[in-house]
Amino acid sequence: MDQQAKKTVLRQFTYGLYAVTAAHEGERGVFTANWLSQASFDPPLVMVSVEIESSTLPLIRAGGRFVVCPFAAGQTELAGSLGRPKRRAGDKFATLDLATITTDTGDPALADALGYVVCRVISETPAGDSVVLIGEVIEARVLTDGEPLTMRAAGFRHAG
Amino acid sequence: MDQQAKKTVLRQFTYGLYAVTAAHEGERGVFTANWLSQASFDPPLVMVSVEIESSTLPLIRAGGRFVVCPFAAGQTELAGSLGRPKRRAGDKFATLDLATITTDTGDPALADALGYVVCRVISETPAGDSVVLIGEVIEARVLTDGEPLTMRAAGFRHAG
Repeated sequence: MDQQAKKTVLRQFTYGLYAVTAAHEGERGVFTANWLSQASFDPPLVMVSVEIESSTLPLIRAGGRFVVCPFAAGQTELAGSLGRPKRRAGDKFATLDLATITTDTGDPALADALGYVVCRVISETPAGDSVVLIGEVIEARVLTDGEPLTMRAAGFRHAG
Repeated sequence: MDQQAKKTVLRQFTYGLYAVTAAHEGERGVFTANWLSQASFDPPLVMVSVEIESSTLPLIRAGGRFVVCPFAAGQTELAGSLGRPKRRAGDKFATLDLATITTDTGDPALADALGYVVCRVISETPAGDSVVLIGEVIEARVLTDGEPLTMRAAGFRHAG
């Protein structure tokens, strides 16, 4: 396979940027995701690829839920900060002094995101260095009607 | 659940637009997808949600492959035409007089797309009204270095 062509074409894919959170027994996790999409209208499902080494993955598995918070345009710096792994960044909720609200399910959502959907995990599928989680949307709230942050606008490159 | 909030937040997700093709024993299928993302770096994997009723799905299953062709900016009309179901649009390769090139694997790719990746299906997971296919990229080719077409630029709304 032409490795450079593989990278180039995969980088032609278009992505948004999202904070994904999870909590279990008082422990909270948050990371920045772009490999994420709706997967079904009825029922409403979302799919997300999560790195196997993500420190939030065990919380998602234990709690059976994840929360997707689309970043608003202009939140590039926050999206970058939340993309750092916990082993280097520590508890990002504390170190970044994140403004959060608590969902009806008791999970943390970013108060400054456009909104959030809470997803109940219905399946997990191995996917190389990651796992693909499919979750059913069980709660949703709009926080602001601003524009979403895109990978292109942020200048990030997490594909290829 | 607040149904309107669910729709609003899911429509804040950002998408590209892609022609997805498949072929098996002389039969060809093509449709427009937006619920599609990379899913792993190593090995390079792509995930796509395909409606259960898609006429191309049986071809993907039979051939064990699908081809992802990112549309170029300006191909809104083509993306719209390829989004029509075969039962109404007929054989879109013929009726739309599609310019195609044949991949090394013998599959059809859109000659006017930015490029393509050929994916070998490694898993299929039920996802409500759709299935999520994960495929390993086994072939890639760049056709042009133009900008990709986004859902937002196209003005389409296939989310919520």
